[in-house]
Amino acid sequence: MLGLMQDWPLLCHKVIDHAATFHGGREIVSRSVEGPIHRTNYHDLRLSALQVAKRLDAYGIRQGDRVATLAWNTWRHMEVWYGLLGIGAIYHTVNPRLFPEQIAWIINHAEDRMVFVDLTFVPVVEKIIGELTTVEQVVVLTDADHMPDTSLPNVIDYESWKAEADSDFAWKEFDENSAAGMCYTSGTTGEPKGVVYSHRSNIIHSLAAAATDMLNASARDRIMPVVPMFHANGWSLAFSAPMTGAAMVMPGARMDGASIYDLLETEKVTMTAAVPTVWLMLLQHLEQTDANLTSLERVVIGGSACPRAMTKAFQDRYGVQVLHAWGMTEMSPLGSFCSLKPEYADLKGDALLDIQEKQGHPPFTVEMKITDDDGVELPWDGKTFGRLKVRGPAVAESYFKGAGGDILDDEGFFDTGDVSTMDKYGYMQITDRSKDVIKSGGEWISSIDLENLAVGHPDVAEAAVIGVEHPKWDERPLLVVVRKDGRETEKQAILSFMEGKIAKWWMPDDVVFVDEIPHTATGKIKKTTLRDQFKDYRLPTA
Amino acid sequence: MLGLMQDWPLLCHKVIDHAATFHGGREIVSRSVEGPIHRTNYHDLRLSALQVAKRLDAYGIRQGDRVATLAWNTWRHMEVWYGLLGIGAIYHTVNPRLFPEQIAWIINHAEDRMVFVDLTFVPVVEKIIGELTTVEQVVVLTDADHMPDTSLPNVIDYESWKAEADSDFAWKEFDENSAAGMCYTSGTTGEPKGVVYSHRSNIIHSLAAAATDMLNASARDRIMPVVPMFHANGWSLAFSAPMTGAAMVMPGARMDGASIYDLLETEKVTMTAAVPTVWLMLLQHLEQTDANLTSLERVVIGGSACPRAMTKAFQDRYGVQVLHAWGMTEMSPLGSFCSLKPEYADLKGDALLDIQEKQGHPPFTVEMKITDDDGVELPWDGKTFGRLKVRGPAVAESYFKGAGGDILDDEGFFDTGDVSTMDKYGYMQITDRSKDVIKSGGEWISSIDLENLAVGHPDVAEAAVIGVEHPKWDERPLLVVVRKDGRETEKQAILSFMEGKIAKWWMPDDVVFVDEIPHTATGKIKKTTLRDQFKDYRLPTA
Repeated sequence: MLGLMQDWPLLCHKVIDHAATFHGGREIVSRSVEGPIHRTNYHDLRLSALQVAKRLDAYGIRQGDRVATLAWNTWRHMEVWYGLLGIGAIYHTVNPRLFPEQIAWIINHAEDRMVFVDLTFVPVVEKIIGELTTVEQVVVLTDADHMPDTSLPNVIDYESWKAEADSDFAWKEFDENSAAGMCYTSGTTGEPKGVVYSHRSNIIHSLAAAATDMLNASARDRIMPVVPMFHANGWSLAFSAPMTGAAMVMPGARMDGASIYDLLETEKVTMTAAVPTVWLMLLQHLEQTDANLTSLERVVIGGSACPRAMTKAFQDRYGVQVLHAWGMTEMSPLGSFCSLKPEYADLKGDALLDIQEKQGHPPFTVEMKITDDDGVELPWDGKTFGRLKVRGPAVAESYFKGAGGDILDDEGFFDTGDVSTMDKYGYMQITDRSKDVIKSGGEWISSIDLENLAVGHPDVAEAAVIGVEHPKWDERPLLVVVRKDGRETEKQAILSFMEGKIAKWWMPDDVVFVDEIPHTATGKIKKTTLRDQFKDYRLPTA
Repeated sequence: MLGLMQDWPLLCHKVIDHAATFHGGREIVSRSVEGPIHRTNYHDLRLSALQVAKRLDAYGIRQGDRVATLAWNTWRHMEVWYGLLGIGAIYHTVNPRLFPEQIAWIINHAEDRMVFVDLTFVPVVEKIIGELTTVEQVVVLTDADHMPDTSLPNVIDYESWKAEADSDFAWKEFDENSAAGMCYTSGTTGEPKGVVYSHRSNIIHSLAAAATDMLNASARDRIMPVVPMFHANGWSLAFSAPMTGAAMVMPGARMDGASIYDLLETEKVTMTAAVPTVWLMLLQHLEQTDANLTSLERVVIGGSACPRAMTKAFQDRYGVQVLHAWGMTEMSPLGSFCSLKPEYADLKGDALLDIQEKQGHPPFTVEMKITDDDGVELPWDGKTFGRLKVRGPAVAESYFKGAGGDILDDEGFFDTGDVSTMDKYGYMQITDRSKDVIKSGGEWISSIDLENLAVGHPDVAEAAVIGVEHPKWDERPLLVVVRKDGRETEKQAILSFMEGKIAKWWMPDDVVFVDEIPHTATGKIKKTTLRDQFKDYRLPTA
């Protein structure tokens, strides 16, 4: 027996309809790539998106076609986003910070038919246009007056292109499981893999993410998504803000401390979200200028672990609540928020910061478990760590074109590649990446914990820990250290410093000193290179 | 092209799994029907629900089978609710306040196989058991010690019945469009009609209803659903509380002011929800005992319009925020909340109360329009009123067994039977029921507006307005008045009092004085009876 409720497919363009109908006057304020501040609202944005949809349809973009954007967060990016969604085409937000050859590879793999590109990234597209095998048309997200001299063939400015249609158009209707958007993961190993969101998954994810204990998004909010729309589905904000009627403040191309601060204050932003690097720049700016945050109420910090000092600075010095969050491209992307359950709600000072170092708990629709390498579930005691696996309607089942093969376990859980603990109240804390954890005699040692401890030594500038082959224990930790300029510390001093602060069997078997530790483009330690470098290293204990 | 996200059906029992996993220790506190306070938590409630599911399965209850409950809000009702959901059976919450013959008719129409009944309502079931054609088993929601002497055949107490199974059971999996629950509307005319919720509709509805600008439900909340689970799907609270990890405080059979106050205070309730009648009793109790509300933060008021004085008392005197809400059984049931958008957020005093008289705006997933009798959409100017129509994934498409036929318009909207305005910011305000509105020369006059105005006269105890046949205008308003004891006011005095406060053509064509106005069981004016009474009345203007 079936329920007798209406068949109302969960389609993403219904979000902008809702925003235009019930929150039509609410603003979308953008710092344009050209420079000036631009203002529109949900009512007008919807009309522009309908115009884009009509123009795309007239051009021949059809349901299921992929279209790339290389663009900052602006109202034009939002127009293209909803215009594509409204005809069943697929927004493919490309990270313009990748190497040009990676961008070309990704666009070809996705078989994008068009590229919408910000002025900033025209040179990138010029560099790769010869290699793009499926792109028919490039549109530069500007107006005729600001069109640059460009070597791109068959190119047009967005405003002229859009003006060839009016907004007298009706959204198309289709199955809610239709593809809505794509985002490639830039894995440290192997080719990038495409995650394909559906209309259904985006809607369910945004409903769950907007909840009081998660984003807590309200029509009274003015939300600034500093996290770019091309980073992990834009953390859902391009959906969850209009869904709740929150105003949007879009930072465009400028994410330095001064520019972000300027928008936070002049546009009375109440909530914002980005990676720690952005907030480091803002906090430095605040300190240098002795400025305050007068309207900001809360900041969502994710993408990598939020340092304790950052949480402390925001909360104690500037009165801004920090929401530590975790997710990944494969999760649409939001997986957990460190909002306070009643068991922790009355904590203060260091005890509160202890909890806020955790990545938190998931909303309904995200299931979690931690397991050992054999898939056996591990206890939720806040200490035992294991592979973090997730399941839910907005979690990837497979990658585009079957890349990576079968990615779910027997129970349908996706292995996040993160290693974490779960505490008794269901708070998750990432302790390592599963490929970096050191497996010593069947037990796991967190490389990150050892690194964090080692850099506490006054003579250590940077530290990395990798597992090195060991005849008895399979793997044992090797500590790789860069000394601070002019320091002469030796192995024993470092080990003595660590002793007593960790379990005996976690102690590194050796310490080596190097001039430099290799890094990725985004500043993370490149452990693959380091492991290559030390793959024949013979530990003194071996 | 389809999205590549996991197939994770939206099933209601996943809500209790989530609550047990991430909010396991959070309490469900109930005033038992037997008297004492009972305490459990989500972890244990889930185990009990599994036990119920296993017991039902062993008995032979199958997917799609209907099972009735005649029960107050208690932990046992929640156990049965989730036990049924977890095997794909259908909770049919019957309103025990209906006449026994109506209850029998509804249970037979639904073809319920079992009845779970609270001690309070055993006499009701005894009265009708001979007429129940499909019920095989009655279970009394108590333990062996409290079983009453009863004439019911084949009856057992709940705890003994449940103890015949353990909790080693796995929920069943099925299509998310499967029926989950049933609730009959007690229409003032015609037979009751069954609304059939699906698992999908319940989940989407609860996600939308829990949002910050709607219920604003959080794990830090302690929610007391005074609204019974048998009233309009329990306003979603049996889902939205565990979904967000909020504790629940269940009032059982006692809803008088003193009992409600006692639970609000001793259990530190932060949010509660019920119809105005309940809050009238509480406010009277507070006034009589000169008491305060020390933990309550907000109260959701719906079911019928929340009087302005009630909002004022809660907010100004007791510091409790009022959330005026609207919905109906056919909408799962929540349709709108009067939370404040930025355009109204700074209002104070009377200006704020003016807005809070409105029923508010819908969450994403609820679409609204107002139309005239021909289906033409009317402007959102806050003045023009028309038939309120709604569409969405948790709005009824049809009734059980096709009762009432096709209930949607050409665009798939359901006519709520309410007449309302919409203002420019998307706030809806109910002005009348469409069958009560007076249609004068093609224009509509709100009977409720005239009634509210007339009772403002110092000599009027109660007033009702109905439309009476008129040769020129089709219908004209007749004002029916009950005078206060000993007052002698006449027609002209009342009309003079109303003059200038409404449009001229809204003025009643006549006033008649009666000793009594007929009421329904729930205290509403019975306009059908009144219209019958005056169906041959000849207006002086006719």
